Amino acid sequence: MTEQLSEIQVSSTELFQGQLLRACRDEVRLPNGAVVMREYVVHPGAVMVIPLLENAHGQIELVLERQFRYPMGRVMIEFPAGKLDARESCFDCAVRELREETGYTAAQWAHAGTLNPLIAYSTEFIDIWFARHLTLGQRQLDDEEFLEVFTVVPDTFFAMCQNGEITDGKTLVAALWLQNMQSGLWSLDWMSC
Amino acid sequence: MTEQLSEIQVSSTELFQGQLLRACRDEVRLPNGAVVMREYVVHPGAVMVIPLLENAHGQIELVLERQFRYPMGRVMIEFPAGKLDARESCFDCAVRELREETGYTAAQWAHAGTLNPLIAYSTEFIDIWFARHLTLGQRQLDDEEFLEVFTVVPDTFFAMCQNGEITDGKTLVAALWLQNMQSGLWSLDWMSC
Repeated sequence: MTEQLSEIQVSSTELFQGQLLRACRDEVRLPNGAVVMREYVVHPGAVMVIPLLENAHGQIELVLERQFRYPMGRVMIEFPAGKLDARESCFDCAVRELREETGYTAAQWAHAGTLNPLIAYSTEFIDIWFARHLTLGQRQLDDEEFLEVFTVVPDTFFAMCQNGEITDGKTLVAALWLQNMQSGLWSLDWMSC
Repeated sequence: MTEQLSEIQVSSTELFQGQLLRACRDEVRLPNGAVVMREYVVHPGAVMVIPLLENAHGQIELVLERQFRYPMGRVMIEFPAGKLDARESCFDCAVRELREETGYTAAQWAHAGTLNPLIAYSTEFIDIWFARHLTLGQRQLDDEEFLEVFTVVPDTFFAMCQNGEITDGKTLVAALWLQNMQSGLWSLDWMSC
């Protein structure tokens, strides 16, 4: 079945190499023999962290961020996330991004799954991690990074996903994992660090 | 709060205009006064349809697609989706994409929400629609479009979201809506067409 749908690379050209983005244009052969163009962004991959914070009453709160996202032209609500550095593992990246962006370190981590945010024109994957037993330290934002950290209880978070306050795709996928993790339908393997 | 995080456009340059992708590079002023570059893909927007098919036993099955996605290098499982044509409404696009890609027309439609698949470097939004009371007609695929249509019961679909068979971001967001619609937590306003 895969073979009947597959597209085969004929040639590949770099469209541009920007400061942030790299894009390619490839000629590909379709299953019917025709040759067409495919243009896409080349991305090293990323991670997203779903941080579970116990408040003073022993209830779970979620650590979220507000960040201005220029392509959207507005402030977006999202879970901590970031790109992999060269030769960095997804887990190391998750630990680093959580610490840099929120100041938290986690005693326990669990891998959930992976998502591909834009399969039509980006190679990006986002690896999804849960973090719990958090300790607050110092944030280490880049000079050019501006974001606010806040917490909400899961019920409020799910309401924001329903009413359109949250539209970031990766954060909505995190809601799917969180909901099924909380209900016990989807289990996680927690590891201590 | 938004003002403290906002980035202001200083200039905008087209990086390239491809057959599929258009990208820009803007100079933007950060909250601290520094000027940096932002590179992003400009996209007209898209729709995704979650088609609910009643099988011979009166059970709901979901209509899904298998399609080779070149940036991923493999066949992906996803709900029907597609880009808005010029001056096309999201609803008209949803009706058209469902018919063209699967052959189905729906007697009832409900708008769910919107997601932004890649807020770091694309302006794209995906409008999410449910369709039910389906009638099968003729597919109208483009010459260069190859995809297979199949159906699964929701339990199988959710298992595929958990076990990594489905990693397409928009389809995982659809799972969030479907799960909450089925449980009655999130309600939909159905309209007849």
